[in-house]
Amino acid sequence: MSSKRVPRYLEKLTPAPEAVRIVASRVKPVSETCELPVWEAVGRVLAEDVRAPHDFPPRPRAAYDGYAIRSSDTPGRLRVIGEATIGKIDVKYRVEPGTAVYVSTGAYLPEGADTVIPEEAVKREGDYIVVDKQFPPGKNYDPVGAYARRGQLLLPRGYVLTMLDVAGLLDVAVTRVKVYRPVTVGIIATGTELFEPSDPAEAEERILRGEVAETTAKLVEWAIEKYTPWALVAERVLLPDNVDTIAWYLTRQMRGLDLVILTGGTGPSDVDPFYQLAEKLGGEVLFRGLFVKGGRPTSAMLLPDGPLVIALSGHPVSALHGFIRLVYHVLKHMGSVRRAAEPPLQAVAELVGDIRAKRPQQVKVRLYRENGMLYAEPLPLERQQSSVIVSNVEADGIAVVENRQYSRGERVPVMVYREPEERGSGGSPG
Amino acid sequence: MSSKRVPRYLEKLTPAPEAVRIVASRVKPVSETCELPVWEAVGRVLAEDVRAPHDFPPRPRAAYDGYAIRSSDTPGRLRVIGEATIGKIDVKYRVEPGTAVYVSTGAYLPEGADTVIPEEAVKREGDYIVVDKQFPPGKNYDPVGAYARRGQLLLPRGYVLTMLDVAGLLDVAVTRVKVYRPVTVGIIATGTELFEPSDPAEAEERILRGEVAETTAKLVEWAIEKYTPWALVAERVLLPDNVDTIAWYLTRQMRGLDLVILTGGTGPSDVDPFYQLAEKLGGEVLFRGLFVKGGRPTSAMLLPDGPLVIALSGHPVSALHGFIRLVYHVLKHMGSVRRAAEPPLQAVAELVGDIRAKRPQQVKVRLYRENGMLYAEPLPLERQQSSVIVSNVEADGIAVVENRQYSRGERVPVMVYREPEERGSGGSPG
Repeated sequence: MSSKRVPRYLEKLTPAPEAVRIVASRVKPVSETCELPVWEAVGRVLAEDVRAPHDFPPRPRAAYDGYAIRSSDTPGRLRVIGEATIGKIDVKYRVEPGTAVYVSTGAYLPEGADTVIPEEAVKREGDYIVVDKQFPPGKNYDPVGAYARRGQLLLPRGYVLTMLDVAGLLDVAVTRVKVYRPVTVGIIATGTELFEPSDPAEAEERILRGEVAETTAKLVEWAIEKYTPWALVAERVLLPDNVDTIAWYLTRQMRGLDLVILTGGTGPSDVDPFYQLAEKLGGEVLFRGLFVKGGRPTSAMLLPDGPLVIALSGHPVSALHGFIRLVYHVLKHMGSVRRAAEPPLQAVAELVGDIRAKRPQQVKVRLYRENGMLYAEPLPLERQQSSVIVSNVEADGIAVVENRQYSRGERVPVMVYREPEERGSGGSPG
Repeated sequence: MSSKRVPRYLEKLTPAPEAVRIVASRVKPVSETCELPVWEAVGRVLAEDVRAPHDFPPRPRAAYDGYAIRSSDTPGRLRVIGEATIGKIDVKYRVEPGTAVYVSTGAYLPEGADTVIPEEAVKREGDYIVVDKQFPPGKNYDPVGAYARRGQLLLPRGYVLTMLDVAGLLDVAVTRVKVYRPVTVGIIATGTELFEPSDPAEAEERILRGEVAETTAKLVEWAIEKYTPWALVAERVLLPDNVDTIAWYLTRQMRGLDLVILTGGTGPSDVDPFYQLAEKLGGEVLFRGLFVKGGRPTSAMLLPDGPLVIALSGHPVSALHGFIRLVYHVLKHMGSVRRAAEPPLQAVAELVGDIRAKRPQQVKVRLYRENGMLYAEPLPLERQQSSVIVSNVEADGIAVVENRQYSRGERVPVMVYREPEERGSGGSPG
């Protein structure tokens, strides 16, 4: 098709890495911090290094259920004088020559003992145990500081706390962490044709009439909650394609947020609504249009004393592409994140089929696993178009590729949203 | 260490795939279904095939903002008689010879039109547009049924609905789906040394005294919510290591659930508490002990008219290993799941270092990405032990390997819980 009137945002498309740099250079990370119990801090960003507050264990600790003894007493017959149970630091017994104290795994060793014999390795006879052979000292217990040394760096500043970190930190008595406050986000779905579905029968009728059930903003919210849990979606609303209304909502309701995401209503048209919005609010356009296929309308502006505003496509997968290429990195920057939890593009798959990409783009793929390898088969071209949203159900993931030719056998990063099909000699462990 | 009295559960360890088969052969999947709006069904399992209820679009739909015209009128000067906006199926205009109707992307075409000219391709002069060249019919609109044909299979029974599927289904006016009721799960953390932390200062003191902050059951709950969203954790409690108490809770409070998971309290001891529990409740032990390293106490019993009971290790990562090897597959079976959403072992990483595994095991690994490849470096052996829980913070993921020798360069499946470190020429897209 020929093109006589080029919309302004098409005049210069910004490559995604540059767009990320531009935004990061103009937006400050959140700086406010607070202290939280570790068990309430999953998904939050550490605002300072976490160091071990104590040598741990603080006393030698039994690594097996068994008997704490003096190694010099073995082999021999020892009198069991008591039991040291887990959860008590003050063991009331002392292991004197010729005696033993029963210890369960994790219990602190009583004074006097220098080794632990697993209970399977002794014969018990009433109040006595019989040890057949000699046992060296220092066996079957964890010495002081075996797990962590006081002052040892456990997790660096900028790491996002995971559920496994919580278990790790509590294990050595770290119960508090200093974290940044969440990055606050508002999402505005724009589009006069949109509606928020509530009743299924009514929704079906409206969709057949040509209205569109809002799913793009919901998908963006889902991605934020999943991949950038340090960001908090404070509000998600639906507004008509009207610059005045959007401007009003931005300045009255969402002024205090760190980031506002607009979905839809940013495509080419006579008058560019994004520039109109910038003009109306005195916003500074950081870039308008991303050099990608699927998410091209992605843009950013900075409001004076207000939030950063990022516009994404109105098409669900194109908006997700904008999230992966831009929003994810911007939220990492705003949250001072050095290492997040799971990234959106966690898997790498081998291509089954070629891709010719003129711009960096997303490709809907079917996924299967064979002999432990993951394979990605692009959907046919006519099902790839961003307007064919139903083809999401035919795909299992989204490959993200750069602007070049890809051949069968090359590997590409993939966002997996459906468990890959198992083919061939199956039986993967999980 | 020598071993004179072998606890019963060590006499025969069951390989995980066989354990899954044994449980699946004795436990029926849930059969009750209900109908839900698609937007409330994310994570649920489809109880029947989802088919397109209509040809979609039900009328030809504009694929660009532009003018609906008759191709036989081009080239020429056409009078614009009105506008067909999105969201209205009853377009009040009809395109007669010499006329045009403005259409926005997604609007249904008015009668009479057989092609759409993008607005950039015409010159507008007041109420008229000027078209320079001939336009063929059938351009720039999506014909009836272009996205989906009535009756076409969209998603098969047994698929777990994802957020992207919701967008896909709503796009073609599927607003309801029939799903299975959730599999209901109870989790009992057992251990007299355990406590549920609430105040950080008090928790620190108790941990130093030798008590243990409960994290294993919490981690299992996290894994269920994340990887098996069709299962609903109805209750998670903490009970002392007392067979009577556990039996009472199981039969009084959790009888109606589909699955109860016990964590901890199942290691070797004089009298096997798992068998004691089975005896007390008339439960049938399906298997006792898994042929794995990390999660060996994993076991299952079936209560008469009651839930399936699965016991997992008391160590967090060992319990997670039991989840990956057993619970995940059992929940897929109980939920009639053929394709889940994201699997626990989504990534495949190349090993940097060797692993010698006598039993199938989990290995804590550091993860980094270089030139698009993911690499996994096992933590040192002394940090791998299940009692060294703090080493979770040193790792970024958990590799799951079989019982054999692995060499540097081999690929292993990995559960990623921290974003891999970027090394070398960085700048991945997400």
